Amino acid sequence: MVGNGLCKIRENIMIKKYSSLLMIVLITACGNSEVNHSNTNQIEEKTYNWRLVTAWPKNYPGLGMAPERIARLVEEMSDGQMKITVYGAGEQVPAFGVFDAVSSGSHQMGHSGGYFWKGKVPAAQFFTGVPFGLTADEINAWTNRGGGLELWREIYEPFNIYPIPAGNTGTQMFGWFNKEINSLDDVKGLKMRIPGIGGEVLKRAGGIPVTLPGGELFTALQTGVIDATEWVGPYNDLTFGFQQTAKYYYYPGWHEPGSMLELLINKDEWNSLPNHLQVIIETAAKAVNQDILDEYTARNNKALRELVDVHGVQLRKLPDDVIAEFKSIAHNILEENAAKDETVNKVYQSYLSFKNEVTEYHKVSEDAFVEARNN
Amino acid sequence: MVGNGLCKIRENIMIKKYSSLLMIVLITACGNSEVNHSNTNQIEEKTYNWRLVTAWPKNYPGLGMAPERIARLVEEMSDGQMKITVYGAGEQVPAFGVFDAVSSGSHQMGHSGGYFWKGKVPAAQFFTGVPFGLTADEINAWTNRGGGLELWREIYEPFNIYPIPAGNTGTQMFGWFNKEINSLDDVKGLKMRIPGIGGEVLKRAGGIPVTLPGGELFTALQTGVIDATEWVGPYNDLTFGFQQTAKYYYYPGWHEPGSMLELLINKDEWNSLPNHLQVIIETAAKAVNQDILDEYTARNNKALRELVDVHGVQLRKLPDDVIAEFKSIAHNILEENAAKDETVNKVYQSYLSFKNEVTEYHKVSEDAFVEARNN
Repeated sequence: MVGNGLCKIRENIMIKKYSSLLMIVLITACGNSEVNHSNTNQIEEKTYNWRLVTAWPKNYPGLGMAPERIARLVEEMSDGQMKITVYGAGEQVPAFGVFDAVSSGSHQMGHSGGYFWKGKVPAAQFFTGVPFGLTADEINAWTNRGGGLELWREIYEPFNIYPIPAGNTGTQMFGWFNKEINSLDDVKGLKMRIPGIGGEVLKRAGGIPVTLPGGELFTALQTGVIDATEWVGPYNDLTFGFQQTAKYYYYPGWHEPGSMLELLINKDEWNSLPNHLQVIIETAAKAVNQDILDEYTARNNKALRELVDVHGVQLRKLPDDVIAEFKSIAHNILEENAAKDETVNKVYQSYLSFKNEVTEYHKVSEDAFVEARNN
Repeated sequence: MVGNGLCKIRENIMIKKYSSLLMIVLITACGNSEVNHSNTNQIEEKTYNWRLVTAWPKNYPGLGMAPERIARLVEEMSDGQMKITVYGAGEQVPAFGVFDAVSSGSHQMGHSGGYFWKGKVPAAQFFTGVPFGLTADEINAWTNRGGGLELWREIYEPFNIYPIPAGNTGTQMFGWFNKEINSLDDVKGLKMRIPGIGGEVLKRAGGIPVTLPGGELFTALQTGVIDATEWVGPYNDLTFGFQQTAKYYYYPGWHEPGSMLELLINKDEWNSLPNHLQVIIETAAKAVNQDILDEYTARNNKALRELVDVHGVQLRKLPDDVIAEFKSIAHNILEENAAKDETVNKVYQSYLSFKNEVTEYHKVSEDAFVEARNN
C-alpha cells in the first residue's frame, strides 16, 4: 500500500502526463489505504470472486457508477456464479495504479480511462478521445465496427490486459472562467487547469496550463490562483459548486468530445473463464457503455437548467477564431505525436480515416437533422 | 396461417396507419407461411426454448440482425439454458402479426418498431420516433433515464406485453428524388412514397403521399409512378439500387431522426422467468441497441462514400423554407393528436419536455462541438 507522502510524489510526477478526466480520481486517490479481502473466498469450485479496482472515488456519480453497474449485472446474469467487488481509488491501489494492478494480476479487473496510461501506451489516448476527435456515437462505431477494438487489444496485449469499452461521458464543457475570452489575445497568459493534449494546445496558444487535483479547484478559482478550469459537464460540475466562484461557463468542449471509459481485465484471468462468463462480462460492459451516456445526457440536461435558471450562470461560446486556432494547433500536435511513434501512427491513421468518413456522413444525417430541428 | 390473398388485404388496410420503417417488412412479410416447430422441445425442466417472430425479412441487414444477435447473446450468456429461435416475417406470422402473436402468447417474443402499432396503441409511435423529434442518443436517454420506459410499459400493459428498447437506425435520409425540390411549389403534386406522420406532413404541404411495399419501389421510381421515395439510409439503400434510377438523394431525414426498435415479450412468459434470465434478456437487448447503431453508423458512412464517389449520386439539402414548413405542419399534427387522446398527450408531454431540455443542453455540448470541428 502506498502511503500519503509517496502518493503525493507519484501524483506530481504523473499529473503532467495525463489528460483531463484524471483529476476526478485525485479527490480520493490517496484517501483510504485499507485492504479489504472480504469476498475473496470461493464458496465452491465453479464460482468466481473477482476484485475490480477503479480510478474513481467510490460511487462517484456517472464515471464511478459504471463498474458498480457492471458488477451487479454480472452477478445477476451469472446467477451468483461470479461476484465482482468494486474498490474505489485508494482503497486497494491508488487511482493511477489500476493499469499495473490488472497487468500484474494482483487484481483481475480495473475501470479507468485509456488516456491515463499515455506514458506507458501513448496510443491509448485514442480510446478515450482526443481534441476535435470523435463524439460518443462515433467512437463507439469506430471501436466496435471500424477496426478500433482490434487495435486497442493489440496495443494492450504486451501488458497482458484485455480492454472492453465501458462508459462514455458525452461531450464535455470547455469549463469555468473568471475572464472573458473575446479573442486570442485573451488566451495569452490565461492560467487554466487543463491537462493532457488540451493543455498542450493552450500552451502553444500562449496560455498557462496548470495541473491541480479536483479538490483544490474551487479554492484556486476563488483566490485567483487560476483564471479558469475545465471539469466534466453540468451534472458533475454543479455538485462541485463552480457556479459560486466562476462567472462564465464556456463551450464547446473541443478538448473532450466524447470520452470513452474502459474495463480492463487481466488476460490470463480472462482466458481462464468459461465462455458464458466472458460473454456476460462483454455484454454487461456494452450495456453500461450506453447506460452511462444515457445518465449523463439526462442529468446534464437537468443540471444545465439549474445552473442557468437558478444560479444565473452565463453560458458563453468560445469565439470562432479562438476555436480555429485551437483546432489547428491540436492537429499539429497529433501529427507530430504520430510521426514520433509507429504504433501511435497506426492507431491515428485508423482513427483519422474513420473520422473523415463519419464526419461526411453525419453532416448529411444527424448533424443536418439537428440543424433543421433547432433552427 | 394467413394466405397471400388475405395478407395483401391486411397490408392494404394497415399500410395507411403505419410509419416509415414498416415498408421494409413488406418485402417478405407474406413470403413464407411454413411453420417451423423445431427447437420447441424442452430438453430438461430448467431449459427454455422460446420463439421470436419479427417484422423483418430473415437476416435483413441492420434491423433484422438485432433479434438474431439478442438470441445468440442470450443463449451464450445462459450457457444454453435459454434458446431463442428467430423467425423472419411471414415464416410463422405476417410482419404485422407480431404484436398480436406476443400479446396472445402464441409466441413468447417479437421484434419490431413501435409505430407499426399506431392503430392499436397511438402513443407507441413516440418509442420509435416522430418527425423533428429525438435523435438516437436522446431517445435512449429519455427512455432509460427520463421516464419514457415506465410510460412505454404502462401503455403496453393492457396488451400483456413487456417492451425493451432493442436497436436504433440513427437518423435516416429524406430519400431518393427524380425531381428537384427548390421551393414549396415543387412539393405541390409531388408523388412520394412516405408513410406515417411524415406522409401526413407531405399531404398538408400539397404533396401526394403514396404507400407501396419496398419491393415495388425501384420499378415505381423508374416508371414514374412515383417521383420520390424514402427508405432508410445509405447502408440499406445502396443494396436496393436506388442510385440507378433516382437522380437526387435528399437530406435531412426530418421524418425519422433516430428510429428505435423494440423487443416485445409476453408478460406472463416474462414473469415466469427466473431473475437471472430476465436480466440476461434486458442486458442483451441493451447491448444490441447500441450495436445496431454502431453498425449503421459505420456502414452508412462507407455506403455513402460509394454512392457519391462510385455512383455519382447527387446529395441535396432540402431548402430551409421547405424544412420550416414541414416542421410547422408536423408540430400541428402532433399537437392535434395529443389533444384527441389522453394517453397520447401524457406520453407527448413527457417526450416534449425532455426534448426541450436536451435540445438546449446539446446546443452547448455535442452540437456546438460538431459545428466547431466541422467548420
